[in-house]
Parts: sequence; C-alpha cells; structure tokens
Amino acid sequence: MTFSTPVRDMRFILEHAAGFSALERTGAFPELSDDLVAAVMEEMGKYCDQVVAPLNEGSDRDGARLENGVVRTSPGFKEAYGQYVEGGWNSLAFPEDWGGQGLPATLANALVDALNGACMSFAIGTTLTTGAVKAIMHAGTDEQKKLYLEKMVSGEWTGTMNLTEPQAGSDLSAIRTKAEPVGDGRYKISGQKIFITYGDHDIADNIVHLVLARLPDAPEGTAGISMFIVPKVHVNEDGAIGARNDVQCIKLEEKMGLHGSPTCVMAFGENGECYGTLLGEENKGLKNMFVMMNSARLDVGLQGVGVAERAFQRALAFAQDRRQGRAPGVKTGDMIPIYEHADVRRMLLDMKAMTEGARGVCYANAVAYDLARKAPDEAARREAAALEGLLTPISKAWSTDRANDVASIGVQVHGGMGYIEETGAAQHMRDARIAAIYEGANGIQAMDLVGRKLQGDGGAAANAFISQIAKEADLAGAAKREDVAHCGRRLAEAASALQKSTDALLETAKSDQEAVLAAAADYLKQFGNVAAGYYLTRGAVAAALLVNEDASGAGYYESKIELAKFFADRYLTEAVALTDAVTAGAMPRIDPELLSA
Amino acid sequence: MTFSTPVRDMRFILEHAAGFSALERTGAFPELSDDLVAAVMEEMGKYCDQVVAPLNEGSDRDGARLENGVVRTSPGFKEAYGQYVEGGWNSLAFPEDWGGQGLPATLANALVDALNGACMSFAIGTTLTTGAVKAIMHAGTDEQKKLYLEKMVSGEWTGTMNLTEPQAGSDLSAIRTKAEPVGDGRYKISGQKIFITYGDHDIADNIVHLVLARLPDAPEGTAGISMFIVPKVHVNEDGAIGARNDVQCIKLEEKMGLHGSPTCVMAFGENGECYGTLLGEENKGLKNMFVMMNSARLDVGLQGVGVAERAFQRALAFAQDRRQGRAPGVKTGDMIPIYEHADVRRMLLDMKAMTEGARGVCYANAVAYDLARKAPDEAARREAAALEGLLTPISKAWSTDRANDVASIGVQVHGGMGYIEETGAAQHMRDARIAAIYEGANGIQAMDLVGRKLQGDGGAAANAFISQIAKEADLAGAAKREDVAHCGRRLAEAASALQKSTDALLETAKSDQEAVLAAAADYLKQFGNVAAGYYLTRGAVAAALLVNEDASGAGYYESKIELAKFFADRYLTEAVALTDAVTAGAMPRIDPELLSA
Repeated sequence: MTFSTPVRDMRFILEHAAGFSALERTGAFPELSDDLVAAVMEEMGKYCDQVVAPLNEGSDRDGARLENGVVRTSPGFKEAYGQYVEGGWNSLAFPEDWGGQGLPATLANALVDALNGACMSFAIGTTLTTGAVKAIMHAGTDEQKKLYLEKMVSGEWTGTMNLTEPQAGSDLSAIRTKAEPVGDGRYKISGQKIFITYGDHDIADNIVHLVLARLPDAPEGTAGISMFIVPKVHVNEDGAIGARNDVQCIKLEEKMGLHGSPTCVMAFGENGECYGTLLGEENKGLKNMFVMMNSARLDVGLQGVGVAERAFQRALAFAQDRRQGRAPGVKTGDMIPIYEHADVRRMLLDMKAMTEGARGVCYANAVAYDLARKAPDEAARREAAALEGLLTPISKAWSTDRANDVASIGVQVHGGMGYIEETGAAQHMRDARIAAIYEGANGIQAMDLVGRKLQGDGGAAANAFISQIAKEADLAGAAKREDVAHCGRRLAEAASALQKSTDALLETAKSDQEAVLAAAADYLKQFGNVAAGYYLTRGAVAAALLVNEDASGAGYYESKIELAKFFADRYLTEAVALTDAVTAGAMPRIDPELLSA
Repeated sequence: MTFSTPVRDMRFILEHAAGFSALERTGAFPELSDDLVAAVMEEMGKYCDQVVAPLNEGSDRDGARLENGVVRTSPGFKEAYGQYVEGGWNSLAFPEDWGGQGLPATLANALVDALNGACMSFAIGTTLTTGAVKAIMHAGTDEQKKLYLEKMVSGEWTGTMNLTEPQAGSDLSAIRTKAEPVGDGRYKISGQKIFITYGDHDIADNIVHLVLARLPDAPEGTAGISMFIVPKVHVNEDGAIGARNDVQCIKLEEKMGLHGSPTCVMAFGENGECYGTLLGEENKGLKNMFVMMNSARLDVGLQGVGVAERAFQRALAFAQDRRQGRAPGVKTGDMIPIYEHADVRRMLLDMKAMTEGARGVCYANAVAYDLARKAPDEAARREAAALEGLLTPISKAWSTDRANDVASIGVQVHGGMGYIEETGAAQHMRDARIAAIYEGANGIQAMDLVGRKLQGDGGAAANAFISQIAKEADLAGAAKREDVAHCGRRLAEAASALQKSTDALLETAKSDQEAVLAAAADYLKQFGNVAAGYYLTRGAVAAALLVNEDASGAGYYESKIELAKFFADRYLTEAVALTDAVTAGAMPRIDPELLSA
C-alpha cells in the first residue's frame, strides 16, 4: 500500500475554496507566488510519500518503547525526522528572524495534512513543537527566545505541552504541579503529568517542555497557573546543550492506536533537581497555553483530514482491486471490481466528500489565521480573527468526528478483511480515534463554540459568516448548471436552518446556559455540515467555470461538482434537520440508577 | 467494572414495545407465563453477570491461541461454557423432541443480548450453534437429526457455518470447495474456508461444521452449491464420538477486536480423508444457508445491542465517578461528576436511546419470528413472517451501525482515559466493529431490504408496517401529556417521510435498479430510525399509563418517555431529512484516478 499526498486536491481547495490568493494580495509574503506554492507542495508530497508514508504500518506493529528510562521510537522515525529537519519542513512558516522561511502558516497547515496522511504517529510530534515555538515567541523573554527558538524553529529540538494531570483532565483548575523560585531566576519544578505526546523520544537532541504549574503563593483555580520552560537537557548560555535536567518519562501508555507516538507519563523533579524558567507572567499560564492550543486545535483538525485521506486511499485501492459479484441483473461472466457496486461507491464518495469538506473548513481556518496577522488593514485583520476564532472549534471537532466516520467506513469497504489487522484499514480507525479527544475533547470544542465564540461577541462572527454563506448559496443557486444550482439551494436551506439555530441559542443564552450547553454538540455538527458544504459549493462554483476554461481537467472539475452535490444531498439536508435537535431544550437529568436497570 | 444484565429494561421492551404477550395468547407455549419469564430472565442475568461478564477483559488481553494445531480459548471460557450447557441455556427455545425447553425463540434472543453484553467474544460461539441446529432441523435426514441434534441442542457439541473462501466473500457463487461422493452415502470434502468463527476450540467435545461445497457435476454459480455436515470428530452410529476427521484450523486471524473468539482458517481434507454427509438436497445449499443466516442475522443485531449496553454501562459508571469542572457560572467549590455536565448527559442519553431503540427493533423481530411459526391462524402467521422478513436486515444492520456509534461515544465519554486500553472502553469499540461486517455486511442487508424485502412483495410488508407506525403516531400524538404527544408528532412526520421514500423507490425500481441500490443504505438507515422511534414511542405510550398505575416505578417510566423524546428530536428528525438522500438519484461513477489526485 502506498500513499500519495493529494497535492492537486489540496491546491484546488486552497485556491478555489479557502481563498488562499488573498494571502498573496496582502503583500506580507513577498516571495509568495503560484509557482512557489506549486513547488513547495510537490516537494512536500515527495517527502511525505517516499520517506514518511512507508513507516506507517511498521510504527503500528513496532511502536515506541520505554527502555531503561529512555523512549525508543519506531524503526525509521529518527532518520525520517532528520530529513524533515534537513528539508526545512519545520521552519516553513516561522519568521526569518529565527531561521524560518516566512511563508504563510497555511502552507505549514497543508504540511500537517500531508504528514498525517503519510503517518499520523510520526506527524503529531511536529505539531507540538509548532505550538511550543508559538508560545515562546509570544511570551518569551529575549534570553529565552535566544536560547530556544532557533533550534526549535529548525526542528533540531522538539517541544511538548505538559498540561494534564491524573486528577485534572479537561479541567485545568485542578493542576497541582509545583514551581518554587530558587532565587536566581530559576524555578524548581515538581509533579507528574500524563498523556504527554512525544514527552520523551530519541529523534532529536533536546526536548523543550512547556509545563503548567503553580507558584507557592498562587491563587486557587485557573487564575493560579503559570507556565514554565523545562528543557530535557539544560542549555548553556552559549546555546550548547549541557547537563541532563531531572525530567523522566516513567511510563508509556498502551493505547488503542497511534502506537508510534510515545504517550508519556512525565515525572518532573523526582530527585528534587528539576529546574525551569517562567514563561510569560506569573499566574498567566493559561493565556500562553491558549496560544499553543488554538494553533494545535487547527492542527488536530488537520490530523483528522490527513488520516481520513489515507483511509480513503486505501479503501479506494481495495475497491478497484477486489472483485465480487456482478451488476444488477447480470448472472454470469467475470466478477466485477466492487467499486462498480453502487453501495460501495456510496461509501467511497461519502469518505471523500467528508474528507474534502473537512479540508475546506481547515484550510479556510488557516487562511483566516494568516489574514488575522498579515492583512494590511485593521478591519480586515479583525474580521479574519473573528472567522479564525469561530472556525477553530469546528475545524478541530467536526473534522475529527468525520475522520472517525471515514476511517470506520474504510474498514467497512474492506469487508471481513477490514477487521484483520494485517490489512491496515483497522489501524487508521484506531489511530484516528484519539483526535476527537485530545487538545480539548470535542465536547469542550462545542462549549467553546456556543460560549466564547458565539456569545462572546453576541453572535456577530457567526451571523457574518452565515450571511457570507447565504450569498454564496444565492450565487450557486443562480448557476446555469442544474447540479450547481441544486447545491446552492441545499446550501441556502441549510444556512437558513443554521441561522434559526443561532438565533434560538442566543435567545436561550439570556436565561439558560444549561440549555445552551445541552445543544452545543448538535450546533457544532450543524455548523460544521454547513461550513463544509459552503466550501465544497465554492469549489463547485469555481469548477463549473474551470470546466470550460481547461478541457484537459474537465473530468476532475466535474468530480468536484459531483462531490459537492453528494455532500449537499446528505449533509446539508442533515443540517436542516439538526435545528430540531439544537432547539430540543434542556438535557434530561435521569437518575443514573434508572438508566441501567 | 461489573456488568449488570438490564433485566428490567429487557422486560419492559419485551412487554410494552415488542408485543411479547401475543406469544402467550397463541397457546403454543403452554408453560409460558409472566412469572416464568421473570424467573428465566433473573437467572439469565445472574449467569451472565456472575459467570460470563468477568471473562470479558481477560479474553481481550489473553485471546484464543493456536497451539500445535489445536485452538485454546481464553482462560475461563471452558468452565463458563460448561455452566452454560449445564444451566440449559442453549436449549431454551429448541423443541422438546430434541431435549429443548420449548420456550419462545424470543427468550433465546434476549439471552443473546444479555450474553453479548457480558462478553461478546464468548457469546458469539453460541449463535453459530443455534444456526446450525436450525439448519439440521430444517433439512436433515432422520439419521442426521438423531446423530447430531440432541448434543447440539444441549450445547455439548457446537456448530459452525463454513461459507467464506478467500476469493468468495459476500459473493458465494465463487465457492470452490469440493465434495465428491464416495459411494456409501458419504462425501469427501476438500478446500479451505476463512473467517470461521469458533472453527476450532477446546470448550466442547465436538464441532459440527456445516460446509458449503460443490459436487463434481454441479452447475456454476450459486445454483451449484450444496451443504454438508462435516463433524470435527466422527460420530458412531450409537452417537458416541469416534475418530478424528481430517479437518484442521491452520491459522487464527489477528483481529482488531474480539480476541477471545477464534476466527479460523479451516482446512478440509488436507490429507484426503475428510468425510461429510449431504444436508438437504444437492445444489440447494444456499436455501439451508439462509435458514441459518436469517436466524444469525437477528442474533448479530442483538450482539450489537449487547455490546452497546456494556459500553453504555461502563461510560455511565465512569461519568458518575469522574469529577471534572463545575456547573455553568459556578467558579469555586468541589468539582462535580461529569454526569452533571449537559454534554456528557447528551452522550449517555444518546448511547442509551440508540441501544434501547435497537433492542426494540430486534425484540419485535424476534416476536415476529415466533408468531410466524406459532400463531394459530395462517393469516397471522403470514403477516408475522412478512414483518420478520422486513425487520431482519434492519435488526442486523441498523443495530450494529448504532453499536459502533454507541461504543465510540463510550470512548469519548472517558476522554483521554478512553484511548488507553487498560480502561476497557476501547475494547468495546474494537469488539463491536465486526458486527456490521459479518453475516452479510450491512451494505448487503440494505440490498436485501430494497430488493427481496421491498420489491419482493411490491412493498406490501413495508406499507403495512408504515401504516401501523402511523396509527401509533396518531395515538401518541393524541396523548394528554405534551411530551408523549410530541413524540407522536415526530413519529408521524418520520413515517410520512419513510412512506415517501418507499413510494419513490418502488417507482424507481420499475426502470433503474442501479438507482435503487444507490439509495439502499440511506433507506435502511431511515427505516431503522423510524422503526426504533416507533418501538420507543410505544414504550412511552405504555409508560404514560403505567406512571399512574405504579407510583413506585414512576421515575423509571418517566425515563422511558424522556428517552423516547430524546430519540425523536434527533433520530426521527434525521429520518425526515433522509428522504432527500434516498431520492438523490444514481450514484456518480467518478474515475477513481480523479478521486485521489
């Protein structure tokens, strides 16, 4: 089984759905051009397909191991990571000041998509480094930046987020890890953290842990959490690595999937000799954490897209190869490839439509991220920031929920073979499953959406986005091609249903936050369906023009319209129905004893 | 983690949703009474909870192994199976002629539900024996019945189905296993079969394989397949077991889940010494196979119900135990159990509503099975048989699809802990995944529904069932309680949408079977949502009466109404939208090259 980074699809969605060209127009990326994007993505595809993708199955069978206190990664990871650093892949979108290439973050996000398609357990380590770099750039002192950033931007050193403790999962107010000032600007750190992705490994020389902990006099709850830089190996003033810090991986979790990614229980200061420095202000650790986390949330959405793409490619290859049965009414002759059966095509188109819909949402989110920072005028930056904020929980939760669906359908396409580990389809399902959980479980994303994102600005961002969708729906609805017009009508109905839900939630929010939270997950699903349908419809509208301009690509452009229609008839219609769930009222509080009787 | 067979729920659904009391009224089960049912189900619960359920986690870690050509089952399986035989659990619903207890098959189906909740990998072996007994009762000669039935009814010997070959998965026309008559009434069998559940094991003294094979002069395709009884150990004329037959398990598959269930590659006649006898007529093997298979399909649906129940119970227990966060607006004080969070309750109610909906469909299917055989008058039997036929693919496919959903939500409720194997939630998700695949993948069930079941009688059975649902919807819609009336209105809308889909498919079928097949899966989903909503609404209508009659159970009956309403607002509304998917037309045939670009 090979994997092929879907460069053509990625570029189509960037350009025709996500509005990537707006980034060139900002002027903030002087080197950016279509040719450059094409070249970067071709090279990216080669690296992912040839170097990373072949590691995927081996990393599942022969995952990370803890040996004498040291984590050994899967065969080939160290070498592939070396090529990642050497190829400059880690530095793509970081500022040139720190050795980066100054390209749009959107391209780095596209790389996350491609890398996770190639091998999710390899790819997710790089996401953590990105988050840590952003946090240090945001809150670090000049000295901290000088000590850490260059090596982290290049990827020579990796980064982690150390948030979770056994008693504090989604609720960070319960964090107990301690940090005591020792008087020389350093802090002594002590405590345990769990679920630390790539908390230890052998692919890079140093690991820069960003650790949430409490100062001795810190207030209770989340207002008393500070963030610390705690390197695995101390860094001397000249930037060279020195002595080992008192940080250990003491256990690797045995997980359902993602065996190639070491998930560590980390012990800080077991021997009382763990030192770190404060990152940002005292007791403001959560603020920095959200800098890491917002970026990581989009990346996790893209992990979903990537693993879905791989599950799709595997299922598609199987469906072309595997022969079973005959066409309706045909009794004799050779068996036909199962791709010829309508129900198998339904499964594959479903996988593809969900994957591309999620890709559209995530890429648009990425473009909004860049515009929020690089658009020339303040109003455009503010508008983009509002869209970025709104889309982030949707990118994260909707894409990863769909990734679970896609990977499960991938198993189904394989029939009995899908349940056999050797086939490989099951691995994608097991790997994908984590993405809906970590970086804020999808229920948390839904609360973020109906809370800070929707109520935070009184619905302004949501309403603006829905208006934009309604306009696109009208445009598509007026198309001369009936299939595109059909998509437009479906999109208009779905946008109107989403508006109804939005109005209802804002009204309910005045009196009953419980009922708003009860509706959160259904609202996020509805929003995701509509947003994905919007970006697919934009692609279809563009494709309807391109089909006349570029005859050689006609089949490809037609396929984009067919996918958009497939999605519209299933997911935009589902979106219409979801208003009933969103407005169903408070969540019953049935006595648990009666629920299991 | 303990499991508790949900006896109260099972009885509620039997009596108030599935119409079990109609079986008493047939007079065909003279011993049947409420007291007997209560006693049987209590004992069943005890056996499942105390003997079987404790095996579940160990069977995942320490699954079946192939050692020197012999399959060793997980620790404790042999003993638990011994108690199963001794307790008479296998013989519950078989005729007294063969040592059975002559109770309704519905009670045996309830046992399948309970056993699979306790330990799916243990339970599924028993299902195969049931199917084999039915096939031999249906098609066996007197001698075959005498040789095999008594031991199989008691469970002392188990049975298997040997259908699948590497080149012939869902398409049995491609079967190549050979059967050559040797002149004394016996046949020499040679060939390999794959995916044979409990093809070998150490829990019983003999295994009676029912094997599909071709006679030398057999016509091509499915019209040339015969069925053979091939025992693992030959049975002498006096019924004692004799010499070993030339049947071997040569490989165990490494599966995503269900590690306790040996999935065997079986070699028949590797040494040219495998003998069997013909079961039924030459070349009519598929007919017998469907006798086994129809019964097995309902049982697989119930496997889905069982594993969903267990996933639900685990998640519910975790949600009561795990403390995280506080109520909206509350900033200080102790953290609350996550069950208190609206979104967590949403997940749990979703799990419970889907599980009970599926239980309703499967139990109603079981009652129809019994009535089709035992109702006193011919018309009633015919009507019940039509409903049984209609519901079977829905029981199988809808219940197992929902089981996948439920088990995945169960992982989600656990957050990060859900992804760690030690927690146990992941096992349910891995175990559940097979049920949508085997016994005819769910796509095959959908084709059965729109083909033989819908078109076979010109829509008569479907239309009759939908009318029945519409009547119940009117009844509920006229209820004095607003919540029940709300369910009734939702059900009426959904039934009307299902009628629209049904009419459209019957019309399309006149000209375009491809388009019918393209719609099959969405139609099955819609049908399942409506059927499950129907049985839940019936339960709610009954509960609304019972709540006044039995004050001590008021909370319980109220919970049934709340669940029905939860389901109606999500799944009956989804059913309304599904008509758009069902009527979306032919499935695009996009060039696969363009789908992965």
